[in-house]
Amino acid sequence: MKYTKPLLRLIEEFQKFPGVGPKSAERMAFHLIKQDVHYIEGFSKVVIEAKEQIRKCSECFNLSSNDPCEICSNSLRDKKTICVVSEAKDLSVVERTNEYKGLYHVIGGLISPIDGIGPDDLVIKELIYRVSRSDPNEIIFALDTSTEGEATALYLHRILSPLCKKITRLGFGLPAGTELEYADELTISRALENRKEIV
Amino acid sequence: MKYTKPLLRLIEEFQKFPGVGPKSAERMAFHLIKQDVHYIEGFSKVVIEAKEQIRKCSECFNLSSNDPCEICSNSLRDKKTICVVSEAKDLSVVERTNEYKGLYHVIGGLISPIDGIGPDDLVIKELIYRVSRSDPNEIIFALDTSTEGEATALYLHRILSPLCKKITRLGFGLPAGTELEYADELTISRALENRKEIV
Repeated sequence: MKYTKPLLRLIEEFQKFPGVGPKSAERMAFHLIKQDVHYIEGFSKVVIEAKEQIRKCSECFNLSSNDPCEICSNSLRDKKTICVVSEAKDLSVVERTNEYKGLYHVIGGLISPIDGIGPDDLVIKELIYRVSRSDPNEIIFALDTSTEGEATALYLHRILSPLCKKITRLGFGLPAGTELEYADELTISRALENRKEIV
Repeated sequence: MKYTKPLLRLIEEFQKFPGVGPKSAERMAFHLIKQDVHYIEGFSKVVIEAKEQIRKCSECFNLSSNDPCEICSNSLRDKKTICVVSEAKDLSVVERTNEYKGLYHVIGGLISPIDGIGPDDLVIKELIYRVSRSDPNEIIFALDTSTEGEATALYLHRILSPLCKKITRLGFGLPAGTELEYADELTISRALENRKEIV
């Protein structure tokens, strides 16, 4: 046994986090136990409070302390546009652009037959109900451009197109700061398709 | 505000960990609040228990639940050899080799004038006292080969050499699995110096 048990348990806990390997888990555990008791108790409290206070908005399924969430209850947002995202963190990515003023719908994942995730495992029924009730002018898919993201967009398009006339998705093309040399062919061919006249 | 406050606080807590950037902190926070309340409380308990139960061995300053630690109190270890390491995690690196059977001394850092860390900030007085009292046959420095590690080894050698006849340090040379092409000159020249006859 290289570490004392409580330390080993702490390292094991950190290893359960996504993207944290044994080395990082060790560093994190050592960092934590170096702090004073006051700090540790504060950390522990933040974790418990986050769990207790964060719930899902019953309208858009975003994570929030309030229900409906800050976005759904904001009277300045355009209630006639719904942006569909996979996870709350994707929502925050779109929010950071400060470009989008509509509402969101967090479906909680992507369709992935390999992982056994079908439409029923996602918050899609609620989306259909919401669309049929609120009659939006536009639904925007802001989903990963992975196979799962594409499959989900296709599926959603099929079931939502009878309910909403304008369904769009984020444009394909070159990401900002790309060196053309390193862009893959699919990205280039989509960027070509999506080319814009310089005015 | 892109995230609800309790979530933001949690992300900020994770960002304080070494090597955790904003993106990783987000992923970790999302991972945690996805778990059920039972798990969260367990995690919190592990953190608090680690802090409560882990103390420093009064002999070697290793982290342990017991004092003296498992290594110092192990009658099978060679009490006449002391391996000096900077941190408890370095001790575990040496332990993992299963080659070393002596004791340790964790000095708690490295001398680094730039960071304002001098000998008095480290557990060196206790090391001197321990050496003068226990009269070891050998003291091994297992320290980083950084400038700080070298400075610390030099300093320790100067103050310990009157007290102990044999003071050694880990051999320099090529790390396992090196492609020579990518080894730096200092490593190569030390490996040359340290060359061994093939028998």
